[in-house]
Amino acid sequence: MRVLGVDPGLTRCGLGVIDAPAARTLTLIDVSVATSSADADAPDRLLAIADAIDAAILKHRPDAVAVERVFAQHNVRTVMGTGQVSGLVMVAARRAGLPVVLYTPSEVKAAVTGSGRADKAQVAYMVAKLLGLDEPPKPADAADALAIAITHALKGGGRTAASGASATPAQQRWVEAERAARRRN
Amino acid sequence: MRVLGVDPGLTRCGLGVIDAPAARTLTLIDVSVATSSADADAPDRLLAIADAIDAAILKHRPDAVAVERVFAQHNVRTVMGTGQVSGLVMVAARRAGLPVVLYTPSEVKAAVTGSGRADKAQVAYMVAKLLGLDEPPKPADAADALAIAITHALKGGGRTAASGASATPAQQRWVEAERAARRRN
Repeated sequence: MRVLGVDPGLTRCGLGVIDAPAARTLTLIDVSVATSSADADAPDRLLAIADAIDAAILKHRPDAVAVERVFAQHNVRTVMGTGQVSGLVMVAARRAGLPVVLYTPSEVKAAVTGSGRADKAQVAYMVAKLLGLDEPPKPADAADALAIAITHALKGGGRTAASGASATPAQQRWVEAERAARRRN
Repeated sequence: MRVLGVDPGLTRCGLGVIDAPAARTLTLIDVSVATSSADADAPDRLLAIADAIDAAILKHRPDAVAVERVFAQHNVRTVMGTGQVSGLVMVAARRAGLPVVLYTPSEVKAAVTGSGRADKAQVAYMVAKLLGLDEPPKPADAADALAIAITHALKGGGRTAASGASATPAQQRWVEAERAARRRN
């Protein structure tokens, strides 16, 4: 499974692509940070980021897109641009016929470090470890985008519809298997 | 000048199209409300609204798109979806090569009623008056979308870049003429 992870942002938008043939053999394919100038107007900024998202999907042909879930309560100053970019990611994925799954920041931290309250350095450290890199990817937006993609791979790409996912039949079977396993424990 | 006005929303998105050959001869061309089900997941809801926006642009070929500016401070519960839809509008307009201008709710109220604190009924009443309709358009989202389009027409379609506009040369000349007139007064 190839996953495009997106850390949404209007000034900097992290785009990380990994291959995950099996959950424990993750490979870095590409990572970049799309940017837009704070001097440009909102439509041009959003268009620049939307074009970069489309280009990443076209170039890497992922099987799924994972994006950080944005909450209206936090960072009022920047939340609007971040939320708008997450909306563009969702539409771009859907128009490319891809499932798109949202993960909260604490879900991402928990998936890659084991703790939902891990700091940025810890997340970047584990991203490097899990992808077999010599050092943490920089800048933080790049590491975060890869962490989101890794989260999707480690969770098997399966989520319930209530979490904002759109499960394929295979994902749905995985979700059901996971639930069955939980019931047995 | 043909204007598409958009009252952004995830559950209901108003789309109003008017012709404004001159500021005092406004004509209703079309008005509709795109909807998405609260039961669907976020990507599918955003896609449905994005498709409706694209369809309106393709069908009516406006010269400009006007959209209500969304503020992060208000209506936390629904602001994220509303902001995301406004982002989709901006990108759709830009991809169609159209200028897109943002107006605050109080700018719209002031433009169509003369008061920035007018209520919804007053706005709907004036929309009907200005378009020569027998009664106010319904639902409220339809009236609001037309009010936004009318605002753009009454303001001559010209705005400064700092307001989120992207002026065409003609709009720029209008802005300059307007500024010169203000200096003379």
